[in-house]
Amino acid sequence: MLAARMHEYKKPLLLEQVQAAKNLSGERVLVKVGGAGICRTDLQMIDGYFREYLDLELPCTLGHEIAGWVEEIGDSVPENIIKKGDLVVIYAAWGCGVCPQCKSGSEQICGNGKWAGFGPEGGYSEFVLVPSYKYLIKVDKESNLKPEDIAPITDAGLTTYRAIRKVKHILGPGKSIAIIGMGGLGSYAVQYARILSAGSTVLAFDRNDDKLDLAKENGADHVINIKDKKSEDIRAEVNKATGRTEVNAGIDVVGTEESIAMGFSMLATEGAYVSSGLVGNQIKMPLFPLVSRELQYYGSFWGSYNDLREVMELAKKGLIKHHVQKFGLSEANDALDLLREGKILGRGVLVP
Amino acid sequence: MLAARMHEYKKPLLLEQVQAAKNLSGERVLVKVGGAGICRTDLQMIDGYFREYLDLELPCTLGHEIAGWVEEIGDSVPENIIKKGDLVVIYAAWGCGVCPQCKSGSEQICGNGKWAGFGPEGGYSEFVLVPSYKYLIKVDKESNLKPEDIAPITDAGLTTYRAIRKVKHILGPGKSIAIIGMGGLGSYAVQYARILSAGSTVLAFDRNDDKLDLAKENGADHVINIKDKKSEDIRAEVNKATGRTEVNAGIDVVGTEESIAMGFSMLATEGAYVSSGLVGNQIKMPLFPLVSRELQYYGSFWGSYNDLREVMELAKKGLIKHHVQKFGLSEANDALDLLREGKILGRGVLVP
Amino acid sequence: MLAARMHEYKKPLLLEQVQAAKNLSGERVLVKVGGAGICRTDLQMIDGYFREYLDLELPCTLGHEIAGWVEEIGDSVPENIIKKGDLVVIYAAWGCGVCPQCKSGSEQICGNGKWAGFGPEGGYSEFVLVPSYKYLIKVDKESNLKPEDIAPITDAGLTTYRAIRKVKHILGPGKSIAIIGMGGLGSYAVQYARILSAGSTVLAFDRNDDKLDLAKENGADHVINIKDKKSEDIRAEVNKATGRTEVNAGIDVVGTEESIAMGFSMLATEGAYVSSGLVGNQIKMPLFPLVSRELQYYGSFWGSYNDLREVMELAKKGLIKHHVQKFGLSEANDALDLLREGKILGRGVLVP
Amino acid sequence: MLAARMHEYKKPLLLEQVQAAKNLSGERVLVKVGGAGICRTDLQMIDGYFREYLDLELPCTLGHEIAGWVEEIGDSVPENIIKKGDLVVIYAAWGCGVCPQCKSGSEQICGNGKWAGFGPEGGYSEFVLVPSYKYLIKVDKESNLKPEDIAPITDAGLTTYRAIRKVKHILGPGKSIAIIGMGGLGSYAVQYARILSAGSTVLAFDRNDDKLDLAKENGADHVINIKDKKSEDIRAEVNKATGRTEVNAGIDVVGTEESIAMGFSMLATEGAYVSSGLVGNQIKMPLFPLVSRELQYYGSFWGSYNDLREVMELAKKGLIKHHVQKFGLSEANDALDLLREGKILGRGVLVP
Repeated sequence: MLAARMHEYKKPLLLEQVQAAKNLSGERVLVKVGGAGICRTDLQMIDGYFREYLDLELPCTLGHEIAGWVEEIGDSVPENIIKKGDLVVIYAAWGCGVCPQCKSGSEQICGNGKWAGFGPEGGYSEFVLVPSYKYLIKVDKESNLKPEDIAPITDAGLTTYRAIRKVKHILGPGKSIAIIGMGGLGSYAVQYARILSAGSTVLAFDRNDDKLDLAKENGADHVINIKDKKSEDIRAEVNKATGRTEVNAGIDVVGTEESIAMGFSMLATEGAYVSSGLVGNQIKMPLFPLVSRELQYYGSFWGSYNDLREVMELAKKGLIKHHVQKFGLSEANDALDLLREGKILGRGVLVP
Repeated sequence: MLAARMHEYKKPLLLEQVQAAKNLSGERVLVKVGGAGICRTDLQMIDGYFREYLDLELPCTLGHEIAGWVEEIGDSVPENIIKKGDLVVIYAAWGCGVCPQCKSGSEQICGNGKWAGFGPEGGYSEFVLVPSYKYLIKVDKESNLKPEDIAPITDAGLTTYRAIRKVKHILGPGKSIAIIGMGGLGSYAVQYARILSAGSTVLAFDRNDDKLDLAKENGADHVINIKDKKSEDIRAEVNKATGRTEVNAGIDVVGTEESIAMGFSMLATEGAYVSSGLVGNQIKMPLFPLVSRELQYYGSFWGSYNDLREVMELAKKGLIKHHVQKFGLSEANDALDLLREGKILGRGVLVP
Repeated sequence: MLAARMHEYKKPLLLEQVQAAKNLSGERVLVKVGGAGICRTDLQMIDGYFREYLDLELPCTLGHEIAGWVEEIGDSVPENIIKKGDLVVIYAAWGCGVCPQCKSGSEQICGNGKWAGFGPEGGYSEFVLVPSYKYLIKVDKESNLKPEDIAPITDAGLTTYRAIRKVKHILGPGKSIAIIGMGGLGSYAVQYARILSAGSTVLAFDRNDDKLDLAKENGADHVINIKDKKSEDIRAEVNKATGRTEVNAGIDVVGTEESIAMGFSMLATEGAYVSSGLVGNQIKMPLFPLVSRELQYYGSFWGSYNDLREVMELAKKGLIKHHVQKFGLSEANDALDLLREGKILGRGVLVP
Repeated sequence: MLAARMHEYKKPLLLEQVQAAKNLSGERVLVKVGGAGICRTDLQMIDGYFREYLDLELPCTLGHEIAGWVEEIGDSVPENIIKKGDLVVIYAAWGCGVCPQCKSGSEQICGNGKWAGFGPEGGYSEFVLVPSYKYLIKVDKESNLKPEDIAPITDAGLTTYRAIRKVKHILGPGKSIAIIGMGGLGSYAVQYARILSAGSTVLAFDRNDDKLDLAKENGADHVINIKDKKSEDIRAEVNKATGRTEVNAGIDVVGTEESIAMGFSMLATEGAYVSSGLVGNQIKMPLFPLVSRELQYYGSFWGSYNDLREVMELAKKGLIKHHVQKFGLSEANDALDLLREGKILGRGVLVP
């Protein structure tokens, strides 16, 4: 089978033939890739951003946002759950199965886990091997969902869902939530914010007017271009939009030192902030407001299988707008370059 | 001032002149009634249903759902908060102020509290005295809300809000919530269910097709007429509507032994039920499913001041449809009779 | 291997030779039974109490509370996690692995699960086959725990732990918790109540003074013999003990209509009740207090793997007092008879 | 009456005669001070640390940790709740009464509140005026508690209680909690950690061996002197003590940039950190672990009335060890100097 593989850090991927898995035993499933999302994390992997935490054995195949069709199943896969031909999304975080995190369903934060596309071969390929049918979610035929649309939901559209779930308890009528960053993740976040925020006002922050226009289409009540603006200025715009200078929740899908400091400075008393973006390395902010206003700060990482199940339910109901740009497997490097230059609106997806 | 007063149990109210409060001291506020909702509880008061728990000193003025204009304020009311002429709703549960419930904001379940219209003079009157400005919520002029529309929100529209808040933690995409009973409370409940349920499917149950039609208008995804149907039949209809024979949450605004047993029997594993209705006297249901499926059952009573604040935020945003039928103070007994006969669609409101 | 097996409902078990599992594949583990707890549920299985919900394929081997030593492991069991000779407890609820309950770690309420001793062969035997090492918890040698002591922890000592965890959020200084029933489960519950209740007062209710004496030893602050007493009398004793006539939480490990009605009637405003016992079939109680005092009622069933992990942590720290009575495999029927007659203090355990 | 009053920033207090309140109206209560705790915050007030956020109108009387006897009551104080001669503690955070925080009982974070000793006259005085009996908690005579012992509970012993309550949901058997800083607050925190942590292991961190010895007496399972140690070294000691190199919760009562960075670096996956101390101005820490391990960070400020009620329940049960050093009103400046030099073990208290 063909795969676009990483052979060296900071170098383009190479398109090459590799052997697909055969004669599956046990719970294993081979999935024919229908769409593989191209994530900023993939760029960061190639650039070596995560090397300190996870040093890849090369060559390897990237791609952790995968949807496709079941091609072959192992002998202990129950066919009433998964069978050949089913359209599925892959939950790509495969934990140890015994730690407290795995045993409560948060396999993505297992300290001994493996993730498709981060060691185990990923989705930039014609086929991908999944260690158990228990990592798949079947998509009903009647839903008319296409693999290229739902592939990004397994990470971009999952990470943001979990991030917003973390602050759901403080939202409600009269409250507001700001999504900081309208890139691949932000466009999902705005949509989820409407659904999960129990009547809160949804604000979108970005430096790019095109992305903010898309945010409006996706359901943001108000959008604010924060380019070159100070906290006071942004607060004034928040006030104009909502009648209050502060927000109750902030979801940061950018992850720079500046975005965090700015977003945090907007929080009302008892407000909550979630970092799910990772670009910068450091958090720097004043201590006094955190303490005296009893603020809350949550890290949020990817999502659990149940989170993905819920996101897929939204997709099945047609409650998620997909914004994807398709590329062939041979265009993987071009697509990564476009992403690096910020020229992809929505999410890039490889369709082998 | 004129008031429609209760002089005897099980007898019509009498319309009569009584003295309005004057020369207010401290935090007190006199409100000119703009609308007073007619609640099933008022009927039950007259009929003696609550007499075992609360024996009224007669004569007294009923009416605990009140909106109106500030007529006069005490000398320690801060005018930047409340001033003459303001349109306000009254939070009518006035607790002791020191018990654990009061100190966490749930004054409506204070064991030593008083409630307007249940002892202290209520809203079936031209004016009503409120012991503190801290029990008022000011309504912005720009909202264009009318007192007759928002009066019922302080109980019918508050009780249901709190009831649904109690199960918010188990709702989300792929889940479902059933509202049982489409009377005065149910029509609010359906609307809140849409807003608070984070993408759950909203079902409305009743025995009356007209009320179910209204439920559809109010946003129910599916309506089921349960008249003369067994649990299995209702489950079959739930299945047809949602693809599953069970619901994740049930909100019971009826409160009969039958409604509770039926609603509870619909619950999925880890499902939750809320009783906020009070008509019958008893709960009777099988033990095994409660234990083996880890069901949850919550009593919910009226609402807190913060609940009312949130409901008013929804109203200000135009997110609540009001269904009221207006009556003059002199028509109070007629309105009560219509309510008893089930002939009021939405909520009856006295407009002095 | 020898096993005490059930061949017919309502008949004594038969001691017989059966074939032990051999040549284990995959994640399977064979455990040499060191202790198998004798549970009231086993009696109820034999008596047919659960037959409506679960009709056993006979003959079968009962016993779901199992501790022992690893005898053999399958080829994909990682030896750094589990290896031959390890002392382990068995988490005996084996779910489907994909439903929302399994994926959040509550396999014991999986709608498609299997449980050792309820179909799959259980612990009344010399050996038991476990489908995955992921259902074992290893016990450190230094802990000096004995299998006969920790076997009952996997159900009697687990069920009560989870039950108390369900009301942990309402407990704290100035609050009280009553454990209703001082049988095999109650003696654990009292101990956990001390540890988990954040300074609450712990009350033990029973009809038997010997059991109440044991409850005192296990850490109950006050014990109350409720035999032939009305709610008012019990409230008076609660008042004498705590200065208040009500309790904030009740844990019912009995499960009769009477125990539930009595316990529920003791609850203070915002109080919570947990049913984890199953003897009777029905719940019957008044509606008004549930609603007007905003009571909460939770079903609780067995426990999750993480619950068992936490209970084992308490055991390792020496924080659980074990009260067991040992029997040989050939004495299984005698032990069941003693249990039926209420003559076992603490828990009976079969030691093959 | 005599009072030790602040006339200028960074200058000693002056002991002088001022007029006590007379002829109380409404809900007001005059309390004869029996003990007024000397808090690090008082030093910081004098030094101007908070001046940016709260500029005092001078002269004023400091002292927000107050216990004493009711001297006089207003005409609407219900004597069944509070009467002359009662021993009381004062809840010193007096909110606006209408904001969402006040209406849910967290008056200490009201944006428009007033606090005794931070504007309104405080407890460094013979008498103090409290605006409502609703801010008092009566102490039973039988409890034998002394005002000098319980005064510090209203802040030092309250702040730490709330801080630990914020992480209660993640604690339990097999978990650990580290208290960072064994000063006036830390000695309470260690005691509460034992009671609230549901069987977790309690660690105490400080740079001073005497304070760590006291922590052991107060119930810490392990103490670690962190002076001049790096994170790795501290982790090694944590490992020696608990078998794991990380802790699940950290409570920071110090509040320097260093203490926060060090404490945060100890957290296990899904761990939680609470800042309740305020000395430094800034938070600085790496982003990656927060996100990838889903850490949680909470600010915690003083406590609510209900928190104080619960702390007083612990005190009444004799579950709090008091470590106070008494000073006369005329020794206020000496006491402040000793505190500045770190020479007070436990809490200094003025006894007029």
